[in-house]
Amino acid sequence: MKAIKDSVHGHVRLGDLAAELIDTPAFQRLRHIKQLSTVRLVYPSANHTRFEHSLGVYHLAGRAVEGFDLDADTAAHVRAAALLHDVGHGPYGHQTEGIIRRATGRDHDDVAWLLTDADREACQVLERNGLDPERVASLIAGEGGLGALISGELDVDRMDYLVRDAHHTGVPYGTVDTGRLVNELRLAGDGGSAGDEGSAGDGGSIDPERARLVLAEGNVPTAESLLVARSLMNAVVYRHHVSRVAGAMLERACERYLNRTDADAEAFRRMADHDLLVALRETVPELGRRIERRDLYKRAVWVGLADVPAGTVDAGHGEELAAEREIADRVGLDREAVVVDVPSRPGLKESGSTVVVDGVPQRLEDASELVGGLRSAERRRWTLGVYCPAEHVDAVGEAARDVLGLRDASART
Amino acid sequence: MKAIKDSVHGHVRLGDLAAELIDTPAFQRLRHIKQLSTVRLVYPSANHTRFEHSLGVYHLAGRAVEGFDLDADTAAHVRAAALLHDVGHGPYGHQTEGIIRRATGRDHDDVAWLLTDADREACQVLERNGLDPERVASLIAGEGGLGALISGELDVDRMDYLVRDAHHTGVPYGTVDTGRLVNELRLAGDGGSAGDEGSAGDGGSIDPERARLVLAEGNVPTAESLLVARSLMNAVVYRHHVSRVAGAMLERACERYLNRTDADAEAFRRMADHDLLVALRETVPELGRRIERRDLYKRAVWVGLADVPAGTVDAGHGEELAAEREIADRVGLDREAVVVDVPSRPGLKESGSTVVVDGVPQRLEDASELVGGLRSAERRRWTLGVYCPAEHVDAVGEAARDVLGLRDASART
Amino acid sequence: MKAIKDSVHGHVRLGDLAAELIDTPAFQRLRHIKQLSTVRLVYPSANHTRFEHSLGVYHLAGRAVEGFDLDADTAAHVRAAALLHDVGHGPYGHQTEGIIRRATGRDHDDVAWLLTDADREACQVLERNGLDPERVASLIAGEGGLGALISGELDVDRMDYLVRDAHHTGVPYGTVDTGRLVNELRLAGDGGSAGDEGSAGDGGSIDPERARLVLAEGNVPTAESLLVARSLMNAVVYRHHVSRVAGAMLERACERYLNRTDADAEAFRRMADHDLLVALRETVPELGRRIERRDLYKRAVWVGLADVPAGTVDAGHGEELAAEREIADRVGLDREAVVVDVPSRPGLKESGSTVVVDGVPQRLEDASELVGGLRSAERRRWTLGVYCPAEHVDAVGEAARDVLGLRDASART
Amino acid sequence: MKAIKDSVHGHVRLGDLAAELIDTPAFQRLRHIKQLSTVRLVYPSANHTRFEHSLGVYHLAGRAVEGFDLDADTAAHVRAAALLHDVGHGPYGHQTEGIIRRATGRDHDDVAWLLTDADREACQVLERNGLDPERVASLIAGEGGLGALISGELDVDRMDYLVRDAHHTGVPYGTVDTGRLVNELRLAGDGGSAGDEGSAGDGGSIDPERARLVLAEGNVPTAESLLVARSLMNAVVYRHHVSRVAGAMLERACERYLNRTDADAEAFRRMADHDLLVALRETVPELGRRIERRDLYKRAVWVGLADVPAGTVDAGHGEELAAEREIADRVGLDREAVVVDVPSRPGLKESGSTVVVDGVPQRLEDASELVGGLRSAERRRWTLGVYCPAEHVDAVGEAARDVLGLRDASART
Repeated sequence: MKAIKDSVHGHVRLGDLAAELIDTPAFQRLRHIKQLSTVRLVYPSANHTRFEHSLGVYHLAGRAVEGFDLDADTAAHVRAAALLHDVGHGPYGHQTEGIIRRATGRDHDDVAWLLTDADREACQVLERNGLDPERVASLIAGEGGLGALISGELDVDRMDYLVRDAHHTGVPYGTVDTGRLVNELRLAGDGGSAGDEGSAGDGGSIDPERARLVLAEGNVPTAESLLVARSLMNAVVYRHHVSRVAGAMLERACERYLNRTDADAEAFRRMADHDLLVALRETVPELGRRIERRDLYKRAVWVGLADVPAGTVDAGHGEELAAEREIADRVGLDREAVVVDVPSRPGLKESGSTVVVDGVPQRLEDASELVGGLRSAERRRWTLGVYCPAEHVDAVGEAARDVLGLRDASART
Repeated sequence: MKAIKDSVHGHVRLGDLAAELIDTPAFQRLRHIKQLSTVRLVYPSANHTRFEHSLGVYHLAGRAVEGFDLDADTAAHVRAAALLHDVGHGPYGHQTEGIIRRATGRDHDDVAWLLTDADREACQVLERNGLDPERVASLIAGEGGLGALISGELDVDRMDYLVRDAHHTGVPYGTVDTGRLVNELRLAGDGGSAGDEGSAGDGGSIDPERARLVLAEGNVPTAESLLVARSLMNAVVYRHHVSRVAGAMLERACERYLNRTDADAEAFRRMADHDLLVALRETVPELGRRIERRDLYKRAVWVGLADVPAGTVDAGHGEELAAEREIADRVGLDREAVVVDVPSRPGLKESGSTVVVDGVPQRLEDASELVGGLRSAERRRWTLGVYCPAEHVDAVGEAARDVLGLRDASART
Repeated sequence: MKAIKDSVHGHVRLGDLAAELIDTPAFQRLRHIKQLSTVRLVYPSANHTRFEHSLGVYHLAGRAVEGFDLDADTAAHVRAAALLHDVGHGPYGHQTEGIIRRATGRDHDDVAWLLTDADREACQVLERNGLDPERVASLIAGEGGLGALISGELDVDRMDYLVRDAHHTGVPYGTVDTGRLVNELRLAGDGGSAGDEGSAGDGGSIDPERARLVLAEGNVPTAESLLVARSLMNAVVYRHHVSRVAGAMLERACERYLNRTDADAEAFRRMADHDLLVALRETVPELGRRIERRDLYKRAVWVGLADVPAGTVDAGHGEELAAEREIADRVGLDREAVVVDVPSRPGLKESGSTVVVDGVPQRLEDASELVGGLRSAERRRWTLGVYCPAEHVDAVGEAARDVLGLRDASART
Repeated sequence: MKAIKDSVHGHVRLGDLAAELIDTPAFQRLRHIKQLSTVRLVYPSANHTRFEHSLGVYHLAGRAVEGFDLDADTAAHVRAAALLHDVGHGPYGHQTEGIIRRATGRDHDDVAWLLTDADREACQVLERNGLDPERVASLIAGEGGLGALISGELDVDRMDYLVRDAHHTGVPYGTVDTGRLVNELRLAGDGGSAGDEGSAGDGGSIDPERARLVLAEGNVPTAESLLVARSLMNAVVYRHHVSRVAGAMLERACERYLNRTDADAEAFRRMADHDLLVALRETVPELGRRIERRDLYKRAVWVGLADVPAGTVDAGHGEELAAEREIADRVGLDREAVVVDVPSRPGLKESGSTVVVDGVPQRLEDASELVGGLRSAERRRWTLGVYCPAEHVDAVGEAARDVLGLRDASART
């Protein structure tokens, strides 16, 4: 059996199907998509890619599946879905997701990517090996109890990226106990009983596709650790302001690139990081060069939820762009020189994960008082930013406060 | 400069004073005191000692002190206090602390240990090197801003033991970012201003002994990570039920040892783990042998705060023993066969740590919504246990519920 | 399936038989036998035990066996042997092996220990589960191709202790690639062909008990890495002079303990580290106290092979003791005050491991030019020591040189 | 003091000068040069860059310099040189070094790069801070005892890349003990005496620029560990055949790119990895696309030193290209379809490192028998390769053997 050495999980053993899938262009492209896009401008060691992450997700899914007592065919579909779950990503991963969604109506884990021309070769490999690409795609989309293993509150995607991002940034907060998490996952029947006893009522076995993915008894702290790891990594890594500034600049640069060239959204989605970096430098030179050289805009505004009117928080992308234009115009700057960055409302996806407590599956938010605290922390950490070249920070700040209707932070006691 | 290799911090460089202190009998004894006493019965790799932990605390204190701009004499006292902070511990560390406190009125970090006969040699080394043992002792007791570095909400003791316990148990939750924590510590003046600007009123420099130890601006998540690490390690490691059962048995065995022999409390405090293990096997053979072979009592009762009357939660040690006797008598067992284990009320020491937010030092519990959640989690995890040999679990459980006035868990909805 | 968390391998999953074996007194005793005995006096973090090491060997044996395609019964015997391979060790492991061998004629991996009274409970567990204790014992003794997995040049014992000792000392040299080693192990038939093709002559399957354990094609560097790791760990860890001094003092103290008390050798073998430490302090107080407090003898003599006459290198234990007496008498010291420490001749066990090169199994020493260099390094590092209290170093050194016929190092050019 | 988090060394503290140098375009470009170029096609986690490596070298140099007692100005030059030592690298680092050398006559550590236009900004920063760029450049070129710390047998460059490459590939062999290495470095005077005693003869202090860099007494194994780490990493990582095939294809593609475009060598040197990848795909599409998708040539020939005539081993680049052409012509293939890859003769740079033995600095090759074995291993592992598309392997192999005069391996016994 072939094995690939991974810096996080050691030797990842590959079945024949996995080895074949890895050789397809759609998967090889993941070598050129960095896992954390602009975070590397803050944590310079964070250059890991979606290629190695996908191998890690495959590895963890395989270990989870060992404990589920599935038929071989179902297990093979789960493993294939784990391996392929990220092939739909555009260049710079999540950073371009909004652009692609607005242009195509599809997310990176949309069922359809896998079934389109783009990844025809991967589909052919699946079919040649007796797998159903549609079933793989629906697992990637998170459907059913087994889909939840690939994309859900307790998915192996999250487990892998937390430990991998910790390993590569050097920030330890993400170091969850993947061994324990994977060992403690169970499939629970509809009636809510844990998998090893079979589902209630019919005394029969559980239908894994319909079952619910839960953590076994005694794992409230295990589930909490996942939530906490995400929350702290959000604060210190994923939403570090330098990464956000660079990411917002990148997003604007991509929009201009799409406007200025005849590149269509689908071709854009298939670019790799290096393609995009070169394309931006050539077609949007000012922003492209700044991103490449880490010569970033500075924060003209950086305010929390309490100082932002609800209308601004919930503004659509069009309104964001309109505000940018208005601010730039007021200050007399090129429109490219101002970036307004309004994150979506704070949330905490993992809080819906399910843990068995005293024999009954419960949502984590009902079983753990920590969830409320973490949710509040997410709200506290939510920040709206407006960025521009260092020399215009004061003028842009003033205009932005006015245009966005921000409450003056200095006026608060 | 001499260096000792540590599995957690790499090479720990030792000054001449530290090298001399390490060679004293009081410090060498720490080689024979395990850091986590009975936890090793759950996590078999957790055999690390207070010797290596003390080196780690010395190392972190030294790095923190580099950033404080102290005079050489003050810095030397802090480093010596860090190194010696645990010499007052009895065998099995915290596990015998209650016994020693009841017998002598002193805690392990009591100022007085260091100044007594027991550690005369360490005192002589301090004096020979121009240090004041009383000043070292008061730092160990946590007095003043620098004492808070050794024993306080943000002390280096905690930072070291969390990462060290994680390294040796294999449970990653304790892996805090010691580098960042130590880099971000500051001494703030009385007026609350951060150290680098000097204390408010007098425009002069800060008196480090009176200053407050705080984390610099931008470190709410850093402080939270410390709290979270402790909370999860509590749940999964420090208060694992197997360790608690063994610890409670050990405490009872020690009490019987002290009753049955003419050993005085001070001699008891100076024993090492191996001395105690042999002494217990010889004088309290049933319990001693069981602890040694991990042939432990089982849980007859294991209930949360909601099911325990306040009077029982706050019972003193004498009442605990009286309840044990009564339960044993009712069931017709030897009194040694029943152990009642009522932990102290749940608390969260680190919640009082201070973090600078918008230029103003704030208590973490005021700056972070997480603290409330963690406090609730501590309350939820509080558990009273009654332990006995496996074959008497039912009878003892019934008697204990009655004697302790426990609400019947099965009666709850 | 039960799992134990290990600081090196993560979660080690235990079968029912393993869980039962672990609960026997013979195995629980391993919690109290440190893996590296006196090395902890140099590397203070090295407090790991033969308990956790045995779990690690069980884990690696299990992974190796997965690749061998054995019948379930054979695999169970191999796993049991891996788990139990160290139950024969005396207190302080290898440090007392010579004493036990001289007193009983048996080594720690002698087949007979397991079958004697001492470990009756473990034998009963084996038999109750349908295993043959004699077969387990012969695997522990290293017999056959599968025995070589437990005790041989490529055994999992070595793989585990190298990485574990590296993890706990903090010295990285032992960090071999256990994943690769275990993945690349094969059973080769008598004719020398690699296992996956079957043995030469009969065209049939390989008899695993008679087969040879080899590393698959392309693994000369893998095998070299094992050799190099041992050689560097020898130099820097296992034979550090401080550990050797303490070890030699301990051996003499044990001999005096056996002479002065009525303890028999078998009871001695069953002691744990803590029993021995207390017993020595009580019966051989001077040496016992010194070992406990790390108040060690100093080196009066420390010379290499070139300066020692062959007769001295090959001297038996009796001659060693006689030399000690004579040196002590000449200087007018108590006989306990001088320790002569003559290691056995330098060797390099792993050099006989077998690697497949161009399809043919070869001994590593034939396939790798490194082996010669490592052997020479072992010879260069061989050192004879004579130890005594610091104040007598000069007088003892002079007498020892004369008594042992050492060439005067200062006379060399 | 600013700090950057590194996944290998933790927090790297930066002085003001370092922070300024890092912000120059020449240094920021290193974010886009991978440390191990094509090795990531074998070890997918190996995506680390020369940016983070340069920070690591700066960190280790700083720690070494702390022990050297240098004046502040000299220390600042050494740290600057450590930080800037890799700015001269072309895209894909060592992989394009030959091309650049042939085109410009300069190596990546040539003194001149730093002083040319290209890096004018870095030079200006140095001058503005009172440093002499020429002195920095000569340190980078390895001149003098301090230059040897940056580029020499015991340089911190090597220490960093070995541990970093181990961390990111997951192959543990490179995990040297950087703490010990850096602690044990000394500057020895001309007379050979170790630094702390001053140079012989004049009784005065050592001139650090003229002194020799050595490892202190007792460090033969430390030096050996460095040698062994390199040798094993060479075998398993740096010269893995897949990386060599990709690297050789890349080199040919670059040559064609330079021939087909008007790019000059200096502009080529300043490209980043992503620039090159896009440029190759556009101008040398067949090879460029293959490299990007890891659709690599296969080995038609793979033979050791014993089978290659000396003339071929020592052939110049022109002869290599001529052989390629002839082989391609004979088989009737496009010339791009055949790549001949003749590595330079095996060597072992670290064998010349100096270690103090019995008070006298000795070359490691004189002090350690291991060096001879490692040198032989390097010779054994030397391999000449000829690569082509899979379908032509047989024909190309046959033609290549003839053209290159290879001894037929199958004819050997």
